[in-house]
Amino acid sequence: MKAFRYAQLVQSIGEKLDAGMWQEGDKLPSIRALAAQYGVSKITVQTALHHLEAQDRIEAKPRSGFVVKHAHIDKRHNPASQTSKTKQPRQATVPSLFHDIMARSAAFDIYPSGKVAPLSTHLQLLNRHIGRAYRQQGERKSLYYSPPEGLASLREQISLHYRQHNIAIGSDEVCVTSGCQNSLYLALSTVTQPGDIVAVESPGFYGVLHLLQALNLKVIEVHASLQTGINVNALEQAIEKHKIKACVVSSNFATPSGACMPSHAKARIAALAAQHNIAVIEDDIYGDLGFHFRPMPIKHYDSRGHVILCSSVSKSVSRDLRLGWICGGRWHDKIVRHKLAQQLASPIAVQEGLSTFMSQGDYRRHLSIYRKQLRQQRDDLLSVVASAWPANLDITRPEGGLAVWVSLADDIDTMQAYQTLLQKNIVLTPGHLFSHYTHFNHCVRLSFVHPIDTQRRRALVDAGEYFKDASRK
Amino acid sequence: MKAFRYAQLVQSIGEKLDAGMWQEGDKLPSIRALAAQYGVSKITVQTALHHLEAQDRIEAKPRSGFVVKHAHIDKRHNPASQTSKTKQPRQATVPSLFHDIMARSAAFDIYPSGKVAPLSTHLQLLNRHIGRAYRQQGERKSLYYSPPEGLASLREQISLHYRQHNIAIGSDEVCVTSGCQNSLYLALSTVTQPGDIVAVESPGFYGVLHLLQALNLKVIEVHASLQTGINVNALEQAIEKHKIKACVVSSNFATPSGACMPSHAKARIAALAAQHNIAVIEDDIYGDLGFHFRPMPIKHYDSRGHVILCSSVSKSVSRDLRLGWICGGRWHDKIVRHKLAQQLASPIAVQEGLSTFMSQGDYRRHLSIYRKQLRQQRDDLLSVVASAWPANLDITRPEGGLAVWVSLADDIDTMQAYQTLLQKNIVLTPGHLFSHYTHFNHCVRLSFVHPIDTQRRRALVDAGEYFKDASRK
Repeated sequence: MKAFRYAQLVQSIGEKLDAGMWQEGDKLPSIRALAAQYGVSKITVQTALHHLEAQDRIEAKPRSGFVVKHAHIDKRHNPASQTSKTKQPRQATVPSLFHDIMARSAAFDIYPSGKVAPLSTHLQLLNRHIGRAYRQQGERKSLYYSPPEGLASLREQISLHYRQHNIAIGSDEVCVTSGCQNSLYLALSTVTQPGDIVAVESPGFYGVLHLLQALNLKVIEVHASLQTGINVNALEQAIEKHKIKACVVSSNFATPSGACMPSHAKARIAALAAQHNIAVIEDDIYGDLGFHFRPMPIKHYDSRGHVILCSSVSKSVSRDLRLGWICGGRWHDKIVRHKLAQQLASPIAVQEGLSTFMSQGDYRRHLSIYRKQLRQQRDDLLSVVASAWPANLDITRPEGGLAVWVSLADDIDTMQAYQTLLQKNIVLTPGHLFSHYTHFNHCVRLSFVHPIDTQRRRALVDAGEYFKDASRK
Repeated sequence: MKAFRYAQLVQSIGEKLDAGMWQEGDKLPSIRALAAQYGVSKITVQTALHHLEAQDRIEAKPRSGFVVKHAHIDKRHNPASQTSKTKQPRQATVPSLFHDIMARSAAFDIYPSGKVAPLSTHLQLLNRHIGRAYRQQGERKSLYYSPPEGLASLREQISLHYRQHNIAIGSDEVCVTSGCQNSLYLALSTVTQPGDIVAVESPGFYGVLHLLQALNLKVIEVHASLQTGINVNALEQAIEKHKIKACVVSSNFATPSGACMPSHAKARIAALAAQHNIAVIEDDIYGDLGFHFRPMPIKHYDSRGHVILCSSVSKSVSRDLRLGWICGGRWHDKIVRHKLAQQLASPIAVQEGLSTFMSQGDYRRHLSIYRKQLRQQRDDLLSVVASAWPANLDITRPEGGLAVWVSLADDIDTMQAYQTLLQKNIVLTPGHLFSHYTHFNHCVRLSFVHPIDTQRRRALVDAGEYFKDASRK
């Protein structure tokens, strides 16, 4: 397996640091100078520097480029130990470059400058409900705050929605939040202290890795199957070996792979949580987007309150409502207090609008149409990739959610692909974002949230061409 | 000065714990049983138990009442040291009872079940702007996220608003948040680690004390004048004596007193921050509500990026937009990343609506009318208190903001008043909420955000009667 150019550069600069060529606080040569010196592109130098930054060896200083932070390497960052298969807890860190990619990738769109399909009748209705809620008793809304746990009417609708799928969640178990990322943040900041160890899936959602870093947590990555999600045996071993405080799991149609955990695995993980007194933080944001049925969340198997269910309507209705929820189990009261400290309350008008949308059956009707549409878009995406991408790849075919996971040839570096294709306004989500390790550097997440129109088909074909070229080199 | 009933009970139960009457994990007698045993009301018992809970001696367990947590008293919680005038850093803790009062008091309304004045023409316009923003390009909004730092157009309007008042804040220094409480949370969670010491005003905003507890911070309270705000000399002494990481200050028309810092004190506090390399977190939410002029924020005097300005439109326009901002100085990038981890993005439609409202001059026009209205309401409030409350009180007369601070006779306990008057749907904000100490237990915050109509006048007169009765006893 050939080493990527930036990886060679990371190693080369690392060796110079080891050899004492620069000391703590020294300024590194400029990106331009390094590019000339090593005969590589400025993008490659930048990528290498961001990796050294993530290894805590150098740091970016405003207006003065990169300076040396730790000249001598720490055992933790030894590349040899990183590639080893035995995973140990490590400090959660993502290179600062990732924030840009994450902000772009959150939209799941390969071609964000392209056209967007017109709003469905149901979503027009939702916007009308919200507009009306702003007008009705506007004076009361402008002067008072919603209770920190959210409006009773919306909490009741969320509970009802679950109960219609035989999931027993009462309205008093629900706390309204600013979206699923906010729910995950509330869950993690309530059940952990800085330095605690948290288990996550690998590959797993980058938003969680970012969050673990923001909260100064240690992370242990547990292997996840691309079809059935987290390996519960491996998780159990990790729990027995390390003092794990919490585990973040995507139960249904997880990003990036679309994996869906089987019922027995869900039941076992809920039992493990109770047995070892740890929190299972369940990200079920894609649960309502099953093409054939609505799978149970892990929360359904939770009898002792150790599972914290996080979700929102961002993926199923609208990202711009910024409304989600959290069912915190035994931590419910503490989570509500944390939310009060963090943001006081959620907007009343938007909560009322969504509550009306749900109570009048529009959410149900919208989902039934949207699921069919997504299924069609998945098929369209798979067919473009089958015809225009290299033949020697693996791709998942999920029965719900918004994304597929493509594993290309081992020597492909999707970060290079991301940076090259970005110049054509094509946004890939490189595998690097889904782990602290290098296992997924040849993978990429693609989404079928947008219809594959001419522009997006063109973008996909261009990406395919790039990968075919890269394979030939 | 006579001791309050609940304080006697706190002492009495505390002594029994000291004497080993109950051990860790033991259940305390029920509230009913304690009330009968001591011949006091259940409310008094509840208040006493909540104080013991704040002292970390007992804890509330769902469905089993209160159990003993620490049978033997910790030096920190020795009542003798608490009443001493020399303030030392202490763990931030507020009794759980406070969360209820805070959630009620956030509305600043003495009679929340009363009538609310109709929405002003400007706010009707704002709601129309937001409704229109939901409809325009609704499909794009439902599928994409706003950049984590907020919409460029809104950030530009916020910058312009400051620049119109000769406050040099560029749009690239602004990050949009979910309100001022959220800004304060982002500021504190970015610049501190658990266990760090933070200086706050005394009396100070309860939202900050709550937040310090949620973030496991230590707090040191610095004396604040009811007219000119924090005592900068006392702050400097505290900074020299303790390793203070940050200081939270309300510069203009602070809650609870309405104090406004003079310019020289603002300049000095900015200089102190740079000199000692600490963060000054400025809460300027009331800055736009000056009756005669818009005072400068501390940020205006900040040349080295050590001042973090937090604000929002919740008090000046509408609490339900849930939009605020933060100008993070040298921590700007870190704050934006923290916001991304915490909630991804703010709602596009609401940001657009507010941006239009500001760009069309409606915010300016609304403020000019609203300030006059608030000034009239302040005078009405002061005149009711002058005629219906005990004569021996002190009350502030702020030239902006939303609140006045009343100091009653030393032997009045406003927590008892709060609990008694709540039965008549009258909501006072007791002085207990504004400090960890007992200095302000005879004080109460009143707000003039609502017109003094018949119902609110009745509520104020009833509260006055209560205090007159209490004084006679």
